[in-house]
Amino acid sequence: MSLIVMKFGGTSVGDIDRIKNAARKVVAEIQRGHKVAVVVSAMAGATDQLIGYCRSISPRYDQREHDAVVSTGEQVSSGLMALALQQRGLNARSWQGWQVGVHTDATHGKARIADIDAIKLRKSIDAGEIGVVAGFQGVADDGRITTLGRGGSDTSAVALAVALKADRCDIYTDVDGVYTTDPRICEKARKMKCVSYEEMLELASLGAKVLQVRSVEMAMRYRMPVQVLSTFANEIGSDLPGTLVAEGNKTMEENPVTGIAHTRDEAQITLTGIEDKPGMAAKIFGPLARAGINVDMIVQTASSNGVTDLSFTVSKLDADRAVKVLDDEKKAIGFEKLASLREMSKISLVGIGMRNHVGVAATMFETLAAKGINILVIETSEINTSVLISDEYTELALRSLHTAYGLDKA
Amino acid sequence: MSLIVMKFGGTSVGDIDRIKNAARKVVAEIQRGHKVAVVVSAMAGATDQLIGYCRSISPRYDQREHDAVVSTGEQVSSGLMALALQQRGLNARSWQGWQVGVHTDATHGKARIADIDAIKLRKSIDAGEIGVVAGFQGVADDGRITTLGRGGSDTSAVALAVALKADRCDIYTDVDGVYTTDPRICEKARKMKCVSYEEMLELASLGAKVLQVRSVEMAMRYRMPVQVLSTFANEIGSDLPGTLVAEGNKTMEENPVTGIAHTRDEAQITLTGIEDKPGMAAKIFGPLARAGINVDMIVQTASSNGVTDLSFTVSKLDADRAVKVLDDEKKAIGFEKLASLREMSKISLVGIGMRNHVGVAATMFETLAAKGINILVIETSEINTSVLISDEYTELALRSLHTAYGLDKA
Repeated sequence: MSLIVMKFGGTSVGDIDRIKNAARKVVAEIQRGHKVAVVVSAMAGATDQLIGYCRSISPRYDQREHDAVVSTGEQVSSGLMALALQQRGLNARSWQGWQVGVHTDATHGKARIADIDAIKLRKSIDAGEIGVVAGFQGVADDGRITTLGRGGSDTSAVALAVALKADRCDIYTDVDGVYTTDPRICEKARKMKCVSYEEMLELASLGAKVLQVRSVEMAMRYRMPVQVLSTFANEIGSDLPGTLVAEGNKTMEENPVTGIAHTRDEAQITLTGIEDKPGMAAKIFGPLARAGINVDMIVQTASSNGVTDLSFTVSKLDADRAVKVLDDEKKAIGFEKLASLREMSKISLVGIGMRNHVGVAATMFETLAAKGINILVIETSEINTSVLISDEYTELALRSLHTAYGLDKA
Repeated sequence: MSLIVMKFGGTSVGDIDRIKNAARKVVAEIQRGHKVAVVVSAMAGATDQLIGYCRSISPRYDQREHDAVVSTGEQVSSGLMALALQQRGLNARSWQGWQVGVHTDATHGKARIADIDAIKLRKSIDAGEIGVVAGFQGVADDGRITTLGRGGSDTSAVALAVALKADRCDIYTDVDGVYTTDPRICEKARKMKCVSYEEMLELASLGAKVLQVRSVEMAMRYRMPVQVLSTFANEIGSDLPGTLVAEGNKTMEENPVTGIAHTRDEAQITLTGIEDKPGMAAKIFGPLARAGINVDMIVQTASSNGVTDLSFTVSKLDADRAVKVLDDEKKAIGFEKLASLREMSKISLVGIGMRNHVGVAATMFETLAAKGINILVIETSEINTSVLISDEYTELALRSLHTAYGLDKA
């Protein structure tokens, strides 16, 4: 008898009918003979409404009170899910973060889970109860409610699966798995049956929105198998209908590229004519960090006559502020010219197989060149190769690369 | 330095602007040099919406899950009130029932407070913080959230005032005090400056909706002064602008009648031709009690030839069921005829002074007779005299009695 943690996101519990539908998924697992713990997000829209209340009282609200207010979203859906399960004849009860013992640090609004004292919950499950746990929330040492930040319910679910020593954590969402690339852009995209933790982490970090990065990190650290699957599809007979994120050794001899991720809304900022001497990077990136601006890809051209150029990317939303910060520091940095390009896109190939294959990047450059797509920045790591291109080529690049790496549907 | 508990009802925190307005009332008390604990209800409408969610999943829902869901209403308003107070420069924080230590029995949905362990809260208040406590909720011994039932926030506030050894509990609502009678019916109704616990308890039990009966019982038991006042009025300079419910010895030599309450929606049921022997009342009222029907006024006529008539009142909403229950028991009871009158109204004079005055009831009967109003049932206790009349005379009766007992505005 396996123990499975089933997590339902905001759209999956978006209204009463959807909560009832999600309850049917739980019934199906119970009928397969599994024990189940359920983790729920807030009903879609509830969290935004609650944050809106806080903002309309004070734009810079106390995060501790924000957490007390916003955590009610999951409290409501946990109670309603327990009722929906009872209505289907199951023995179910809700558990709030503080009732389970989801202990977090005191970083309200984006707390990190320290440990979960799941003994009471595990006993209740072993006694035949279905525990419905409010996701996204925990309790700090001082007894105050914390929230884990956006997407935190995925992390709650994986952490709970680890604490309960569950056999698997199933993340029910509005897509039916992880695809080789965005299926809304590339109709030949294939749903993957399996993807390794490492690949999933890269895909999530590089723009695939299906799983929250923190939850993948946690799954990888504790080797907890995670399945991504749809709340709305009616799979019958299939035991693992979604995408399983698990140990990755099976893909060693397979295609070097597993999937292609992308992020739009990138901006590139280039400083030209800066002196090539130690300490320059600190002068440039220090003020940006203090302004809370995340910098992503960084490239520096080879120095010529002691002078060099430096390019990096930031989110398009931060571009104006970044330009202003650097202009204010122009004297201190001593650059000649500042140029910025908006409407950029980052395309990333991800695959464990890259470690053992040569020529993966070369195929990328050739494919993009053949379509007349200019590459502005290149960045590589052990299992990903990313390029920055003009946003208008995003769809063309994704489709061409998908075909070039043999990822199209059979 | 006094400690005052300030309780704001659902309409007083009905939207963000009203929460901000209520926060101004707290600021005013702080500026007068008082320490303050705040108790809040859910934003008006929130509780009904949450109950609606539960009902739409299951008409006979689990009360424990109902409590988990519904208690979020007060959790939200406690967080928002704390934010509104912070926004005005005060040091405030929210406390949920389980965080304070509001221990209740496990009668979910209508739990009773067993004790409040207010040590942590009191320390926080003494350290200069304003505690904003979610009303209506507590925690059972097993760690699950309970709610106190409708109007429970008044009870939370008085209980908290007792536990904190507060000097006074102020109940902010949408009326500015307790009136000698319903001011919507009788324009000469006067706001009382002071009313005794005993009188307030009778008034609340007999139809005055301004305070919840349980909260008055608790205030009386612990001799906690309670002030009823308006959230929306702008009283300046007055220290006790509302009605103070407190020890009642001051009214001993005053008007024998303090106020006139009424309840509409009464129905009278009369059984004629029943045998006058021991055990009859049990045969009649036993089945009604088992059907959950509350019986109020009961009168029995003097026996003639061993046969008597019996009349009693029930809520109009229960009248059909009561008639059916009695018809089913007709053989066992052995009555001749059953008659019912709907659209009845109960008018009650309340006053501690009645104890020491003669002729109070006589004035009532004369006044009503002079207006041609027929009295169907009379009931008296030490400090109230109630009559049942046809509902259509309610307004006329209230106004005539108000004048007859010298309660009109000067």
